[in-house]
Amino acid sequence: MSPATDMELAPGSVALVGGGPGAADLLTVRAMRLLRQADVVYFDRLAPSDDLAVWAPRARLEDVGKRPGHHRVPQPEINRLLVASALAGLRVVRLKGGDPFVFGRGSEEAAACEQAGVPVTVVPGITSAVSVPAAAGIPVTARGISKSFTVVSGHDPLSEEELAGLAQLGGQGGTVVVLMGIGTLGHTAAGLMRHGLDARTPAGLVERGCTPQQRVCLAPLETILLASAVEGIASPAVLVIGEVVRLAPGAELPWSGLTSLAGLTGLTGLVDNA
Amino acid sequence: MSPATDMELAPGSVALVGGGPGAADLLTVRAMRLLRQADVVYFDRLAPSDDLAVWAPRARLEDVGKRPGHHRVPQPEINRLLVASALAGLRVVRLKGGDPFVFGRGSEEAAACEQAGVPVTVVPGITSAVSVPAAAGIPVTARGISKSFTVVSGHDPLSEEELAGLAQLGGQGGTVVVLMGIGTLGHTAAGLMRHGLDARTPAGLVERGCTPQQRVCLAPLETILLASAVEGIASPAVLVIGEVVRLAPGAELPWSGLTSLAGLTGLTGLVDNA
Repeated sequence: MSPATDMELAPGSVALVGGGPGAADLLTVRAMRLLRQADVVYFDRLAPSDDLAVWAPRARLEDVGKRPGHHRVPQPEINRLLVASALAGLRVVRLKGGDPFVFGRGSEEAAACEQAGVPVTVVPGITSAVSVPAAAGIPVTARGISKSFTVVSGHDPLSEEELAGLAQLGGQGGTVVVLMGIGTLGHTAAGLMRHGLDARTPAGLVERGCTPQQRVCLAPLETILLASAVEGIASPAVLVIGEVVRLAPGAELPWSGLTSLAGLTGLTGLVDNA
Repeated sequence: MSPATDMELAPGSVALVGGGPGAADLLTVRAMRLLRQADVVYFDRLAPSDDLAVWAPRARLEDVGKRPGHHRVPQPEINRLLVASALAGLRVVRLKGGDPFVFGRGSEEAAACEQAGVPVTVVPGITSAVSVPAAAGIPVTARGISKSFTVVSGHDPLSEEELAGLAQLGGQGGTVVVLMGIGTLGHTAAGLMRHGLDARTPAGLVERGCTPQQRVCLAPLETILLASAVEGIASPAVLVIGEVVRLAPGAELPWSGLTSLAGLTGLTGLVDNA
């Protein structure tokens, strides 16, 4: 893998390109240049793709995020397609949402190329883990508030060990960022509190961050599940937990309001049932 | 703060723009567009700046990374300059290395603008925390190896509590990324081992990542300080600790080699003295 700058996309090679969090103009200059050279682009559900025909005018565009029957192309098949296209002499771009090496299975794709002797380069992208909170006015670090941030995937429920480790870092003021965390939100919030993280720790959910459809839901950890249900927050969304959430514009109000909401008889059941 | 896409830089407003890890073409399309519109650009030591006069042809360029006497402009003075320039009606870009909200004091600059009633927008940048390891072939997450990554600043020595939390996450397979960590490398490595992280955990230092001058130093945690001294690794450098480091090309060799190096009489003293 090369740390190249200003490199070209040679025939028979693959570039794993980060497409950023969703806004077209948050692609990098390098990503745009490689797309212009591509013969084929394999793109994802989360990669910005509306204008792909303009960005990659020479390329065949292949959506591997879903097949006609709405099934995603399985990962081994994506790996196979990348390698086969490169071995056929094409300039191959694999366009992924966010950054290729942040929960993107990019390392598997890079390994598949390397094992097949196909030159592969990784072009970093703006990761949603940092940019989506920022789009809601939430810095993942802030002097005097948070000296670290930890990024985890909420695709599968976190283990007790992971919850304990995150609760410990969160208790020291570290920011916790959970990607793909809507489906496991109740498990995550309850688990962090069970392992000692203060129930009043501010939390925020940012739905479709960095796009015109962005929505933000702020609440203390103990009521974030309730608040997200009331607001109907859906995937894709980024969950941020930590004192930095207080820095979001308009974040003064919800801490008291939603805490009392949770106290209403009948509504608290939502939290337990999740 | 607006989550705007395709926004313009209005007179009297400030954009905090992430400049990425060092390569000019790792700026975003949005960053380039705002630079073209800028009347004044305040830039940093770590922001890519060689071609700034081309990117921002209308702008006065102000280096706030150092003054004639090699002193950095103090943060309150930078905040004051941003606000004063905006209040004077200028289109202001503050160009920072990496991402504005990852240890960049961007939240302080945003707060200063908001308190002065100056419209401010944050444009995310490619953070070194993910892209610099990637440039050395190290993914911060990888299926079956690492399910999380934690980013901390090594500018000041980590506390015992922080070291304990990081050692716990690292013991579960989480990746630890330390920015600005060369000066505190001995303290960090020794502290993580004292708190139970396996001394043979792979570690990597990437100096000037994503630039043509990039250098990589790989070693087990117990000898990374020695290895970095032998190689003369200097700032800026990103430290990565975790099993994912084994995925770097050429990472098969050093684990055995440097472990035996550390066993040599006389050399081990280097570790203790740091």
